[in-house]
Amino acid sequence: MAMQMDRTALTLAVDVMGGDKGPKEVIHGAQIAVNRGLQAKLLLVGRENIIEEALAEHPIGDHPVEIQHADGVVAMDDKPARALRRSKDSSMWGAVASVKEGRADGVISCGNTGALMAISRLQLRMIEGIDRPAASALWPSRSGKAVVLDVGANVEVTAEQLVQFAIMGEAYYRALTEKERPVVGLLNVGEEDLKGNTLIRNAAKILREADPEMAFCGFVEGNDISSGEVDVVVTDGFTGNIALKTAEGTARLVGAWVKEALTSNLMAKAGAALMMPSLKKLKTRMDPASVNGAPLLGLGGLVVKSHGGAEAEGICSALMTTEELAAHPFLDAIAKTVASVNDRAKSVDVEDIAAAAE
Amino acid sequence: MAMQMDRTALTLAVDVMGGDKGPKEVIHGAQIAVNRGLQAKLLLVGRENIIEEALAEHPIGDHPVEIQHADGVVAMDDKPARALRRSKDSSMWGAVASVKEGRADGVISCGNTGALMAISRLQLRMIEGIDRPAASALWPSRSGKAVVLDVGANVEVTAEQLVQFAIMGEAYYRALTEKERPVVGLLNVGEEDLKGNTLIRNAAKILREADPEMAFCGFVEGNDISSGEVDVVVTDGFTGNIALKTAEGTARLVGAWVKEALTSNLMAKAGAALMMPSLKKLKTRMDPASVNGAPLLGLGGLVVKSHGGAEAEGICSALMTTEELAAHPFLDAIAKTVASVNDRAKSVDVEDIAAAAE
Repeated sequence: MAMQMDRTALTLAVDVMGGDKGPKEVIHGAQIAVNRGLQAKLLLVGRENIIEEALAEHPIGDHPVEIQHADGVVAMDDKPARALRRSKDSSMWGAVASVKEGRADGVISCGNTGALMAISRLQLRMIEGIDRPAASALWPSRSGKAVVLDVGANVEVTAEQLVQFAIMGEAYYRALTEKERPVVGLLNVGEEDLKGNTLIRNAAKILREADPEMAFCGFVEGNDISSGEVDVVVTDGFTGNIALKTAEGTARLVGAWVKEALTSNLMAKAGAALMMPSLKKLKTRMDPASVNGAPLLGLGGLVVKSHGGAEAEGICSALMTTEELAAHPFLDAIAKTVASVNDRAKSVDVEDIAAAAE
Repeated sequence: MAMQMDRTALTLAVDVMGGDKGPKEVIHGAQIAVNRGLQAKLLLVGRENIIEEALAEHPIGDHPVEIQHADGVVAMDDKPARALRRSKDSSMWGAVASVKEGRADGVISCGNTGALMAISRLQLRMIEGIDRPAASALWPSRSGKAVVLDVGANVEVTAEQLVQFAIMGEAYYRALTEKERPVVGLLNVGEEDLKGNTLIRNAAKILREADPEMAFCGFVEGNDISSGEVDVVVTDGFTGNIALKTAEGTARLVGAWVKEALTSNLMAKAGAALMMPSLKKLKTRMDPASVNGAPLLGLGGLVVKSHGGAEAEGICSALMTTEELAAHPFLDAIAKTVASVNDRAKSVDVEDIAAAAE
């Protein structure tokens, strides 16, 4: 475990122009984060006059701030290739560049995910031995939080990529929680006898044989993600994205039911009034904003993606997570583990996927 | 829409021996269902002495009941092939046979899913034009219930199978709700630009061009399942199974949070006491037992799978669903639509999956 850094020595770059809600929402989020104890210096990247206007509306006192002007904006619906071609003057490019040039320890953006991935890969490169970045989510669970990855960056993966996700998720979880040996599981369906799991079976085999250090518990099911018994849940980006959004929808539905129960009649309303403090805590717990901020793991620098539609509270959470991660550098740990596992993985005898499908 | 049948003229076959909780739980579920107004005659299939003992403990009065003796039991962990070979004297085989022979209008089993699929396919055959059965789930939503399929029967599917699932889900939803044109969506990740969706894009294209009657709304995301805006959500069995279990886990986690909020201190407890009636309704809504009972669609007969671990309440729900479906026959509707869509689908120009992957 790396030594914890002095947080006032950190700098976080913020792509102020990205996101659906506009620059003012981003600056408002920064203001809340500073009020809640964020210590890192903020490097605000975007149109100078807009940032200054937003800061006038949401002042952050004498907290260290630097503005880096960038004229361009990557649109939320730009294709990654197009964003790459014409983005070199954009706030997103500039914010990522500050990490590349060592002027910032991490970057956060609410902008276009595809463009952020492409711009980050181009500037920061991948960690040696990692094929593609994975988007990871913090997921509330009975024991606190679980890390789930990939939640949308890679719709199709190989067994080797799932192994890389497992190693990255483990290092990420360790950086966040200081738990030395996080429990890692591969997301699968319950029944053992089904076809189509060759990929996952191969990934499990490689993990078991090539990474004996990992506390790998084998396959887990959808309901295990929130059970608290597994810390890192590994899956492809298609399944992970659908699981994440399904959970958000479920929480929202149940939240509506709870609200209905609390206001259905006078007696219930009187009861709810007595319970106000407990209900407030419940509301905070159920607020998706409290877990906003997903690092794109595998890059040679810290890049955190916020929900495009995040409001100030969500942006604050993402900034807090980014500071936490910048203070516990884990990229070296990923690089070291990946190198040794990739090496040993070569001798693992995996099933032939094409043959198994027949 | 088919005419509704007189429910007292229906017979439901019950595989009494399947399930984790044993025959008494199944009979107890039948007792609750009868008390709540189930009208169909019950054909109880299993060991006669065990059924009689269970009926003595959970009597169902003068409700029409017939016992069909079967000596064998399919074990919960039997492989389908093994279950098929040695299962012809089992309660599962006997229960499905009663549908084949026209002595029952539907069958319900809490037993081994793989064995139930295999035994049902062998005896009841598939509907012409349907490749494989799909397991469908009733999913609570803002507007009532959505149907999601496949939730675990087919881990890998083709675009044509997704189209078949859509047609089956539409007919199933119509039978349950009498809504003439249910809204059908294909489950996908949010971002359009991702690879790996050739399969789903092809399915969407076929549905649009070959089934103009369907109210097909295109792609939906995980959070749309419970939003109430889509009635039938179509996906492969891997994704569907993980989405279903993830939602169950999320509901359980949020339920634990709610319980904690209600009992965290004296004031909260006093408030909760005032709210008791509303909270009871909330608890029922959140109980997975209330949506137990998933038909295996595509078979030439009505086969409903209950959770293996279902308790009496869940078995009651599954029996109620089975009666509802038996009273609104929809197998002919599936057959008719599948035939015409399959015919038109041949002229739809779909993408080459292999080429798109390059």
